[in-house]
Amino acid sequence: MVSMPEPPQRLFASDNASGIHPQYLEAIAGANATHELAYGVDRFTQSGTNAFCALADADVDVLFTFGGTGSNILALAILLERAESVLCTEWSHIAVDETGAPERILGVKLQTVVSPDGKLQPAQIVSAVNVLGSIHHTQPGVVSISQPTELGTLYSIAEIQAICQTAHQYGMRVHVDGARIANAVAAMGATRDVFQKMTFAAGVDALSFGGTKNAMLNAEAVLVAPQYRGRRAQYLHKQVTQLPSKMRYTAAQFVRALDDDLWISTATAANTAAQTLFRKTKEFKSLQIDMPAVNSLFPIMHNPAKAKLQEWSFFWDWDINRHQVRWMTSWDTSPADIDAFVGGVATVLAE
Amino acid sequence: MVSMPEPPQRLFASDNASGIHPQYLEAIAGANATHELAYGVDRFTQSGTNAFCALADADVDVLFTFGGTGSNILALAILLERAESVLCTEWSHIAVDETGAPERILGVKLQTVVSPDGKLQPAQIVSAVNVLGSIHHTQPGVVSISQPTELGTLYSIAEIQAICQTAHQYGMRVHVDGARIANAVAAMGATRDVFQKMTFAAGVDALSFGGTKNAMLNAEAVLVAPQYRGRRAQYLHKQVTQLPSKMRYTAAQFVRALDDDLWISTATAANTAAQTLFRKTKEFKSLQIDMPAVNSLFPIMHNPAKAKLQEWSFFWDWDINRHQVRWMTSWDTSPADIDAFVGGVATVLAE
Amino acid sequence: MVSMPEPPQRLFASDNASGIHPQYLEAIAGANATHELAYGVDRFTQSGTNAFCALADADVDVLFTFGGTGSNILALAILLERAESVLCTEWSHIAVDETGAPERILGVKLQTVVSPDGKLQPAQIVSAVNVLGSIHHTQPGVVSISQPTELGTLYSIAEIQAICQTAHQYGMRVHVDGARIANAVAAMGATRDVFQKMTFAAGVDALSFGGTKNAMLNAEAVLVAPQYRGRRAQYLHKQVTQLPSKMRYTAAQFVRALDDDLWISTATAANTAAQTLFRKTKEFKSLQIDMPAVNSLFPIMHNPAKAKLQEWSFFWDWDINRHQVRWMTSWDTSPADIDAFVGGVATVLAE
Amino acid sequence: MVSMPEPPQRLFASDNASGIHPQYLEAIAGANATHELAYGVDRFTQSGTNAFCALADADVDVLFTFGGTGSNILALAILLERAESVLCTEWSHIAVDETGAPERILGVKLQTVVSPDGKLQPAQIVSAVNVLGSIHHTQPGVVSISQPTELGTLYSIAEIQAICQTAHQYGMRVHVDGARIANAVAAMGATRDVFQKMTFAAGVDALSFGGTKNAMLNAEAVLVAPQYRGRRAQYLHKQVTQLPSKMRYTAAQFVRALDDDLWISTATAANTAAQTLFRKTKEFKSLQIDMPAVNSLFPIMHNPAKAKLQEWSFFWDWDINRHQVRWMTSWDTSPADIDAFVGGVATVLAE
Repeated sequence: MVSMPEPPQRLFASDNASGIHPQYLEAIAGANATHELAYGVDRFTQSGTNAFCALADADVDVLFTFGGTGSNILALAILLERAESVLCTEWSHIAVDETGAPERILGVKLQTVVSPDGKLQPAQIVSAVNVLGSIHHTQPGVVSISQPTELGTLYSIAEIQAICQTAHQYGMRVHVDGARIANAVAAMGATRDVFQKMTFAAGVDALSFGGTKNAMLNAEAVLVAPQYRGRRAQYLHKQVTQLPSKMRYTAAQFVRALDDDLWISTATAANTAAQTLFRKTKEFKSLQIDMPAVNSLFPIMHNPAKAKLQEWSFFWDWDINRHQVRWMTSWDTSPADIDAFVGGVATVLAE
Repeated sequence: MVSMPEPPQRLFASDNASGIHPQYLEAIAGANATHELAYGVDRFTQSGTNAFCALADADVDVLFTFGGTGSNILALAILLERAESVLCTEWSHIAVDETGAPERILGVKLQTVVSPDGKLQPAQIVSAVNVLGSIHHTQPGVVSISQPTELGTLYSIAEIQAICQTAHQYGMRVHVDGARIANAVAAMGATRDVFQKMTFAAGVDALSFGGTKNAMLNAEAVLVAPQYRGRRAQYLHKQVTQLPSKMRYTAAQFVRALDDDLWISTATAANTAAQTLFRKTKEFKSLQIDMPAVNSLFPIMHNPAKAKLQEWSFFWDWDINRHQVRWMTSWDTSPADIDAFVGGVATVLAE
Repeated sequence: MVSMPEPPQRLFASDNASGIHPQYLEAIAGANATHELAYGVDRFTQSGTNAFCALADADVDVLFTFGGTGSNILALAILLERAESVLCTEWSHIAVDETGAPERILGVKLQTVVSPDGKLQPAQIVSAVNVLGSIHHTQPGVVSISQPTELGTLYSIAEIQAICQTAHQYGMRVHVDGARIANAVAAMGATRDVFQKMTFAAGVDALSFGGTKNAMLNAEAVLVAPQYRGRRAQYLHKQVTQLPSKMRYTAAQFVRALDDDLWISTATAANTAAQTLFRKTKEFKSLQIDMPAVNSLFPIMHNPAKAKLQEWSFFWDWDINRHQVRWMTSWDTSPADIDAFVGGVATVLAE
Repeated sequence: MVSMPEPPQRLFASDNASGIHPQYLEAIAGANATHELAYGVDRFTQSGTNAFCALADADVDVLFTFGGTGSNILALAILLERAESVLCTEWSHIAVDETGAPERILGVKLQTVVSPDGKLQPAQIVSAVNVLGSIHHTQPGVVSISQPTELGTLYSIAEIQAICQTAHQYGMRVHVDGARIANAVAAMGATRDVFQKMTFAAGVDALSFGGTKNAMLNAEAVLVAPQYRGRRAQYLHKQVTQLPSKMRYTAAQFVRALDDDLWISTATAANTAAQTLFRKTKEFKSLQIDMPAVNSLFPIMHNPAKAKLQEWSFFWDWDINRHQVRWMTSWDTSPADIDAFVGGVATVLAE
């Protein structure tokens, strides 16, 4: 039995395991000079709001929040109307990974559809609306998609447009869970223009904009399209427990992120690391791995190699029946981390 | 008309308006060296949990959260049973200042009782339980009190013991909203012993332990007494959207706070500032002001002086019918801030 | 000790304890000839709906329901908007006697106001709306009053108009819990015109119209003013579990009730019985009793007389601290019942 | 084009469209003699409770309710614990036909599993519990099955035993939606013994016992196994709006039903009618029809014949993609009704 090399300094477990970018720590410290009124009545929140409107090229409502689950709950609370349900895929974070928060807090049914690639199809909206008008069924009200999806795939701009168009045709609204929206933007052109085109210009009605997985400290935001302002979003913000009292520290991070688009740079770094990891492992026999679209890879890897590798540098199982695992890179994954990890993979597969 | 002096650098609006103590920023930076698994599977969370158990002198369940409203919701979700209500005063934060979050997220009735001083009396528990056994009424299940109260008053240790004893006698549990528990501890002896005696040793079943108003960055915690562990608290933590993915940064602040009881020092500073402000303003004619128990003062102050002072250095109206306002000091209120503010008060009252 | 006479055949406990009027049993049997489609797609439901529109002199939405609590929940579900609360008195059935159903099913805060006579004052609406615009508070959205009130008092038509006017002025809607609306109509003129004037013509937005306490079999209805149609009421009807599958039997009773206004006749009988009971007991020494406005009396009566009387023919305590009880007459209370009961009162008071 | 014969007097649309058995109308009239206290404090409710305990051969908690959706909600409210989900098939009434009442009232996630025949397999429970212990997922707490299923199929006693055994092994409880439990009992032996064996003796923890579809007037009941008594069922009964004030009329019907097992006779009549209808139509060419297990048939039938038949005597489409419809017989379906309907089928298919 060959002994394992030194493990990488950073994990390939999740971008949630990564640290805070020093620039965001500086932004926090920079907002700390004196007192500011709480709950968003401060100049950092004002600047952050302006910065998001500029990014979105639209007069969006901006609600800074603590976490991703809370962002999704708040966005849906704003968009949902009486007796409605949310249409989403069987893989969606809201349906699978939020411990039933939508059902508990919103009292809403999530209608899940089968999806081999984590993407929802316009035709599935058309199928779902066959219950419109039947009083025994919740009425499809919101389509919620994730960009990128939970399976690391991406919707094209045209696909998002088509979803929005189909949904709007039936009176539905569209929410995007963008916990990793930066990685999608980075992968699809890395410009503000591509962000606009895949969100509000495409017809998206509300967006959960993630910061935490992208090098920020507990910083998320909900952006609401102008046509859905005026729905008591600010009250719901507090009611769902997502209103930070010291909001300036969240806002200041986003001001920094949007100033020179550091949020795109960090996401690009994570995506690039995933590409590198793919390139360096794709030739390994007995490892099946597909080209990553963003910063996650989902290789097929059998035991005992898999277990040995996990013990050495932890990562998560994904679909245990298919022997599929998830490797995830982060904004701070270094070339040395990748080389160390690839070394470990080579070692366990060589045995 | 006399012109106003230079306003104080820091506000007397709320401790929520104050900044972060540099030691907490250092603690955050100190937790940033490398990757740590998310959602609390990290060494800072483990240390923070141990530190809270040591502080409580009990094997409490420790749940780090984002905000105070969320802490209260989580604590109540853990304590409540089927068809129960929460008994609290008409001034309680959960009933008045949380935009109906308890009703929405917990589906629970808050039964409020009249209270001139913000404190709940054991006799009010005895009155409330007369509906026990009647199927047309929610059953009183949890008594929720705030220490200090929303009116800046304090329960003595004996009073908390009496509330716990009465509540337990009728099968009820006791929650303490301790958003400013540090200020109470600082005022009543400033020792760990007094903390233990006013909480778990007195019979408290769950405590919302506040950090944000006491110099920390979006850092709160829920402590659950050993007898109420095993109620799926960790799942509820996520379900009510209060589970930080990068929990280490919250935990690291509490590790720092509890290491040398910085949390008591900062609260003592805030309380002392309030005492000083009281001492320097109590002789003013046309101002009625009572000795503060913690870091809030509730003077009676008439217009136009009041409005002019607010415009100069903002603070909140409290009971507009009684011309009562609230002045609040913070951990970082300096002697110069107090002198400047007193100067302003003197000026507006002199006119 | 004097022995008690024979107790009355019928109770003075509640109109909920009374039987079904034979005409309603006939109406049920008359709807039983053959099959009818379920869930309201039947000719009885159509007739009942038309009959209610004629009664209301308005194109109201009519939703037949099972019970009174369910009616209130459904009416509020239709009227409430995001982050809103319901303003009602401390005596209101929704706040006191529904085991927290509004909080659980609607997730809504009930804001109660003090009321010595069970009636809500327009000035209390004006006080409540001082939180409009503050994100830390639920926004007053619906005023819910009971006609008659839970204390057996009545709003005049002018008072209901004033409540509606004040509420609408602040963007609020008005719900009337009319579990005993028939008794109010009977007391205030016993005409359809008075019904219209105290409800939709006065500005009421939704009404829970009670039948069960007024001689019907589990038959209630929610009437929604034309301006609040189109809020998915039919879906909410099912969602809150109040959609009878065999709706025709509920509707047929209301068709009968509204055909020759049997609903007013039965309520008049109950009110008259209360008047008679009052007239025959008001002179008793050691009994304090006020003239009833509808079919409930709230005498002050001390032990041991009270306990002895309750044991002999049961009725409920009302305010045990004030030695107040409730006597309630029903549509079927006979002169013989009254005489028997008065005989018992005389006996226990004579001792 | 051949002209259609006279349509049947009764519909084949749903057993919900059938009338009330005269014996139940008599039972209602028989409970109408005098006053009885409301909310179940009456002798009919006591007798009905005793009768159900005798039927179940267990000291079950008996809660009389208004409707089937309400029964399911109440049963689940009793069985569910913190942060739990309900496992059920994709066809289950709670997931598909209750307009999201479980999500809204219980705040619970329904985890649906694929099922070609409407039945849930023990192996699907084993798959579902792989999330036990993961804080990001609701914890499977209750398995809810329907007997018969929504597809007209039946679980054998052994299958229900296996589901209960598997569920209990993982700490889960089992609910049976028995909206048509009588039809299942009738089909599987038509004895009380078979009822016991398929419910509480098999390990079922709560049962929704349907009466409305089986010739009764808005009469349903929830039976709770002895081991789950004491969970504030009576309070939840009111809280979910399913507590009839005049409960005696519901109870009296069940007293009658259980007295000589009229409930089994009526269900047997419905099942037999379905068998007869099957026998008389199975030879029709261009009609695919399977032997019914209970009182519903799901033939495949193409247009224009299908549409013409529906227009003549209405019934529901079931799976429009497969050209599948549902024909349902009732307790009162007569031989003449069947012959008339068969005549219509023959006519439309002959064209």
